[in-house]
Parts: sequence; structure tokens; C-alpha cells
Amino acid sequence: MPRYRLLVEYDGTPFVGWQRQPNGDSVQGVLEQALAKLCGQPVMVQCAGRTDAGVHACGQVAHVDLPREYSADAVRDAANFHAKPHPVAVLRAELVSDDFHARFSAVGRAYVYRILNRRAPSVLDKNRVWWVAVGLDVERMQEGANHLLGCHDFTSFRAAACQAASPVKHLDVLDVRRCGEMIEIHAGARSFLHHQVRNMVGTLKLVGEGKWSPDDVRVALKACSRAAAGPTAPPEGLYLTSVRY
Amino acid sequence: MPRYRLLVEYDGTPFVGWQRQPNGDSVQGVLEQALAKLCGQPVMVQCAGRTDAGVHACGQVAHVDLPREYSADAVRDAANFHAKPHPVAVLRAELVSDDFHARFSAVGRAYVYRILNRRAPSVLDKNRVWWVAVGLDVERMQEGANHLLGCHDFTSFRAAACQAASPVKHLDVLDVRRCGEMIEIHAGARSFLHHQVRNMVGTLKLVGEGKWSPDDVRVALKACSRAAAGPTAPPEGLYLTSVRY
Repeated sequence: MPRYRLLVEYDGTPFVGWQRQPNGDSVQGVLEQALAKLCGQPVMVQCAGRTDAGVHACGQVAHVDLPREYSADAVRDAANFHAKPHPVAVLRAELVSDDFHARFSAVGRAYVYRILNRRAPSVLDKNRVWWVAVGLDVERMQEGANHLLGCHDFTSFRAAACQAASPVKHLDVLDVRRCGEMIEIHAGARSFLHHQVRNMVGTLKLVGEGKWSPDDVRVALKACSRAAAGPTAPPEGLYLTSVRY
Repeated sequence: MPRYRLLVEYDGTPFVGWQRQPNGDSVQGVLEQALAKLCGQPVMVQCAGRTDAGVHACGQVAHVDLPREYSADAVRDAANFHAKPHPVAVLRAELVSDDFHARFSAVGRAYVYRILNRRAPSVLDKNRVWWVAVGLDVERMQEGANHLLGCHDFTSFRAAACQAASPVKHLDVLDVRRCGEMIEIHAGARSFLHHQVRNMVGTLKLVGEGKWSPDDVRVALKACSRAAAGPTAPPEGLYLTSVRY
């Protein structure tokens, strides 16, 4: 069966997350139903990084096996036609060899977390950013972030529900940048633990507002206890931006 | 009565436009009701550029007279508190002299019109862009735009309902820029006719897709007839970005 690689964008707001679940619409479910309409039989779509409810993607990658060959553009256009009115779009489809696996072939994931840092609430970016009214010092946040770079046991930043075999991960990128009222935190690694990015962001926010020193991040990491780190940042600021193969 | 200048952001999607109207919520109405709650009596808010239903602003300017003096930050915070849950935010408030008038003191308005130019529909930018699936040539669009720069009779780009005394305007800026899938058209002038930006954009889209030559824009302008120019671009791509005094 021909395998297609899909580049997918979605607004995570109305979904229970990427993964099919009985309690609501999922991105996976929308794509599977849309592609089933194209080929007249059930299909299964697998992605590189399962995102939680409310988390967005502009560069999710998925693959699907279809019962016969279509042009890549026909797959993209049919998926977009049948996905309406759900906020999911296939930006690109391409035929790939059947040893390509969206999840297991991936060697890098990149996320961005956006914080709108101003007194006035978010309006044009509602559900697209974490609104933080208190002023954040991005230099201090970057200092704190630097303690997390490299290979560590990230137990302190791992959700209780995390199913990864090991809490040891190598964090390649954790850049904190301000552009006017918007703060973007770019994170890159081969893979992440469940809630890792949001837990790191929730912790760096404490540093940015001066409740923690940058060095407290190092202490929290070393503690290897979820209770030692900061709270989980809300989902609406998080975007899966790209997957590397 | 102390006069306050307000810098206002809003999502135009749920509104009948800036102006109070009997048939739905308006940005003006939301701000007037919010500020009336602060000071316990009715107030009137006037803006620099009345926007239509669906049109957004990140840099609208308005003024309001309040019955007594408050700190500028208290005005901003109270407006934002009472405007909830409507998507309107006061980004800044400042006390100004009472010869400041948001509309009549303005000497320049700037708008940006955003086109998402790709096959896949808009998802993360739904209601924030005009989705155009057919490829647009921005160099051709810029060539067409250049014919509109300077002082002209803009009757061809003027809504029938326009109340301006004269159709003659001086267009200072009309820049067409592409950044990946996004095309931004920046327009700047002392003032604009009703629908002028959207009518110019709807016309330039014809040029971008090859249905018109750049020179056809010049011909349409000279015709001084609304029928000679292209259709009105939809409101959701348009943003009032700044007002100059």
C-alpha cells in the first residue's frame, strides 16, 4: 500500500489533542475520517509528536497508508476538503517509501512557546498565546534555561502520565527571545517527555518574574522530582513547529 | 473634563464594525459601556478610523472625556476588565489636552492587508487573513500598486456609501511584500475613502493571478468609475495598524 507523508497544521483549541479519544474530536480522528472519505475505507494516521488538548501545530508530520495510489496533491486537497469545518489543514502530502515512519524515523522535534507579555489581555491572539501580565525578564529566563541544555534526567519536568521508558533526554535548544510584547521560547531535541516543554516554560516564567533565581532551575533539575519544578504552562501557547528526519 | 487617548486592539470578527449600530455589538459600544462602568455615567468614545464589520485593529486610536481624573493605567485596566469577554483591549491610555481629537487631529493612517497564499486553507489564521489558493505574483502586484501612488481621484476604489466630501486622496504607501505563504500589503495615507484599501487589494489580486496586467490598474484608476476596478477584498484580512498625529 502506498505510504504518504503529511505536513499538518492545526488549531488545537477545539480538540482533545492529537490522539483519538472517546470524549471529543481529535486531530487524528479528523484526518482519518477525511482520508477515509477519499479512499472509501478506514485508514490509520500516525504522527511524529502527539500533542495535548489546546496545543497547536504548524509543522506536525504524519504518515498514512492508502489502499491505492493517488497524486500527492489529490491527497492534500481531498484531506482539506473533507476535514472542513475542523481547523486542520494538510499543507503538503508526498509519496514516501514504506520504511518511513512519522514517529520512529524522526530525529528531531522543535516547538515554540509564545507568551504575550503585557498588561492588556490577548485579543487578536486569544487561544494562541499564554497571556502573562506581569513583566518578564528574558535575560534571566535565558540564564535559567541554559541550566537545562544538554543531557539530563528530566524527571522534574515530566508529567506523571508520561510513558517514556527513560526520563533522560538531550535538550539541544532552549532559546528565550523577546520581540516587543511577544516572548518566544524555542525548544529543540531528538524527543521530549510528556509536558516537558510546558513544564520548562512554567518554571522559566517564575524566573522571569523574579520569584526564582536562574540557579533555582538547576536545583529543580537536580532534585529529580516533579514537585521541585514550576507549574505546567497552559497549552494554548505551545506549537509543534517542525520535525526533522 | 479630562480627555484620554486610547490605543486599542480588537478582533473585528464578532462586531458590526467600530460604530454603534442597532443590529449588533460594536467596538465603540463595548468601550463606551466598559468606561461607563468605571465612571458611573454614559461616555462617548471617538476613533481615528471607523472600521467595517470583520476588520481588525492593532493600533486604533480613540479619545474619551471622563467626568473626573483617573490615573491613565486605571483607565486602561478598568476598560479591559469591563470589556470582557469581548475581544477588545486598551493597550495604552494617556491623559491628553482637550484639543486632541482622535479623528480630526490625525495626519496619517496605516493599514496592512494580509493574504494567506497557499493551496491549504487557513487554520491558525482563520478570520485573520484572506485565503487565496491560486498563486499570486507579488512583483506584478507591486507594479500595479505603483500606479496608485500619489494624488488621484480614487472614485474607482470608493464604496457607494462613502461620505467623504471629495474622492481625491494622496496615497503615500502601497507596498506588497511576501514572507513565505503570507503576502502583506501595507497602505499609508493621510486618510482613505470608504473601502479604499479593500478595493485596491481586490484589484491587485486580479493582477497577481494574471487576469489583469499591472497597467490595467492605471486604466481602472483613470476611469473614475467603481465598475472599472476589481471586487472588494473580504474584511478579515484588513488591520488598522497605526495612526499618526
